[in-house]
Amino acid sequence: MTIGAYDILEKVRAEKPLVHHLTNWVTIYDCANIVKVFGASPVMAHAPEEVADMAGIASALVLNIGTLTSELVDSMKIAANSANKKGIPVVLDVCGAGATAFRDRKSLELLNEVKIDVIKGNASEVARIAGEDVRTKGVDGGAVGRDLVEVAMELARDRECTVAITGEEDIVTDGRGTYLVRNGHGMMACIVGTGCMAASVIGTFCAVDADLARAAAAGLCCFEIAAELAAEGGPGPGTFKTKLFDCVHGLNRSQIEARQKIEVR
Amino acid sequence: MTIGAYDILEKVRAEKPLVHHLTNWVTIYDCANIVKVFGASPVMAHAPEEVADMAGIASALVLNIGTLTSELVDSMKIAANSANKKGIPVVLDVCGAGATAFRDRKSLELLNEVKIDVIKGNASEVARIAGEDVRTKGVDGGAVGRDLVEVAMELARDRECTVAITGEEDIVTDGRGTYLVRNGHGMMACIVGTGCMAASVIGTFCAVDADLARAAAAGLCCFEIAAELAAEGGPGPGTFKTKLFDCVHGLNRSQIEARQKIEVR
Amino acid sequence: MTIGAYDILEKVRAEKPLVHHLTNWVTIYDCANIVKVFGASPVMAHAPEEVADMAGIASALVLNIGTLTSELVDSMKIAANSANKKGIPVVLDVCGAGATAFRDRKSLELLNEVKIDVIKGNASEVARIAGEDVRTKGVDGGAVGRDLVEVAMELARDRECTVAITGEEDIVTDGRGTYLVRNGHGMMACIVGTGCMAASVIGTFCAVDADLARAAAAGLCCFEIAAELAAEGGPGPGTFKTKLFDCVHGLNRSQIEARQKIEVR
Repeated sequence: MTIGAYDILEKVRAEKPLVHHLTNWVTIYDCANIVKVFGASPVMAHAPEEVADMAGIASALVLNIGTLTSELVDSMKIAANSANKKGIPVVLDVCGAGATAFRDRKSLELLNEVKIDVIKGNASEVARIAGEDVRTKGVDGGAVGRDLVEVAMELARDRECTVAITGEEDIVTDGRGTYLVRNGHGMMACIVGTGCMAASVIGTFCAVDADLARAAAAGLCCFEIAAELAAEGGPGPGTFKTKLFDCVHGLNRSQIEARQKIEVR
Repeated sequence: MTIGAYDILEKVRAEKPLVHHLTNWVTIYDCANIVKVFGASPVMAHAPEEVADMAGIASALVLNIGTLTSELVDSMKIAANSANKKGIPVVLDVCGAGATAFRDRKSLELLNEVKIDVIKGNASEVARIAGEDVRTKGVDGGAVGRDLVEVAMELARDRECTVAITGEEDIVTDGRGTYLVRNGHGMMACIVGTGCMAASVIGTFCAVDADLARAAAAGLCCFEIAAELAAEGGPGPGTFKTKLFDCVHGLNRSQIEARQKIEVR
Repeated sequence: MTIGAYDILEKVRAEKPLVHHLTNWVTIYDCANIVKVFGASPVMAHAPEEVADMAGIASALVLNIGTLTSELVDSMKIAANSANKKGIPVVLDVCGAGATAFRDRKSLELLNEVKIDVIKGNASEVARIAGEDVRTKGVDGGAVGRDLVEVAMELARDRECTVAITGEEDIVTDGRGTYLVRNGHGMMACIVGTGCMAASVIGTFCAVDADLARAAAAGLCCFEIAAELAAEGGPGPGTFKTKLFDCVHGLNRSQIEARQKIEVR
């Protein structure tokens, strides 16, 4: 069974949606560039005076708390309110949740005060948001005791949103159906930024497809197939990252249909 | 006819001017690195307590409002005042003007409160600053109804400065003469950062040549010839960007004289 | 004589220490990624509400004042206090000291108010911190009149810390013994970021070895051997940087033992 990942990618390339980000200062370039090489249009803006206007001309909003401050989260709320009013999807990467109490508290503030449409993180980040007693090592995932699909589904139902847990096997669920995406390559964990880029890709795909779980799964699948292609020939992590942008840019239907490994439950 | 682009590049490499930036957080590395590979010396500093001192030891100042805040613009004014007093050129990249009212307002504040020597942007950004009723899609250009050379010349005369509109054909004018630079490659539009780097290159070249329109045109020409060389063999966008730094570093007289496409009006 | 650089690298790869940074916005990605490709775990966090907690779960703290503000330095002090209490090493990159009075003042504030375990900089930066009357050109080193080993040793004794001066020959001393590391390649000075990455590497190696001078020298040696390998074949600066990450990732015992050039005094 296929979820038409390539068809959604074609929509991204045709519609070139504007994807507004308030993200972290480490991977901000990569977040912008991955949106660009997917054929869409990134914009980064965080001043409280303009975020509502910028979200108002965008087709999706991506929030990432990787290097959060209180002021940045305040701007995120303003942007998300504007996005909520306009009805565009809001993706929240709970980057580093489970590492400090501040990240947990600010993540929950966002979830409670605005409508988040997609929660994205690695296993321990999402589990922490779901109330599990886990520890994240900075922004690198830690062990989670419970079944991850269950954690994701419960959180999706509780928050009435889509949840995406990235890892060797990505779990994407809206609380009803679940997609397990088994594409990707171990080299993705050897460089900084693939997790943040994944959230930007989810935002980009959700900008053009109202079925957010399907869009998120399709985006992750395409991104990870590009990573598989970039890893061919066994490059080191620097070359791998360079080629990742090349391969996203060049993704075609036959590559995606031949490699797509998505289980739909 | 030639404007001696390579001669100005040689001056950059010999004098290694210090180019002080207050720029955006997305492409800040690329802005610094492009200055470095051109053989000059970049420095990024934005604290209000030090920007006057830093501009005071620099040979050019580059301002870019890509991820502006009110506080950052305040620092830009302090730095620009210091640059104005010292008599070094100030370049303003009106990144995203026309996307939000805040960007328009802050751009005009800068233009009204300090002396900007070079205004740089894409078509819709510069047209917005010139008072046209246009819309910028985030930081990606939108359509402009009027003749762009006319828009640029009027703005240059009004503001008594040099104006550089980048695009497939770059327009550089000081309100008297005009340079049309027709170098470059479509791949430049496929990655994030080439526009911001162009402003840094303009600042670098203006640091060593008092004829700012000529220096800006020469800088754009050299940068875009490097892009043509980097695009040879049809690399994807990741590899293209890596090679762009290689090719800037390696630029020589014969490459520039063979490829330079500048119309002087 | 060998200082066992490869053995310390193996410890980094085995223990995967979490290295907390408050660094500059220009090279923040590179600082994180170099830690990652060395096999460790970087985290960047600067909010005053969370830096104590983040330092509290880390194994080393790296501070870099490249794009400092007063607020950021305040956060650095909170983080360093937490690191001091926990007993993990604190590395301070005095990036740009000697360029503005503000950088000098803030560097001294940090040195006076918290315990800095390793001071790192280029010749003019460290000399400035040591009280010499020198000038740094932005973040690029300037000339220093005195013998650098002497400057480093005196500063190390005065401040009871380790001092690392990077350059063609790196000087690392704890005021008793001194390591002179003669690895590296001229291409490192052609791109932005190698200096900042060097501080992150020092932090990473100090996270796993209590002899901080030895750890710092070992880290610099490994990083610079990777640079030598990356420079083979004469790549341009863009390609060199990409390959630098590849070569760090791939470093093995025979490369290090064959190339290591460390004089122990």
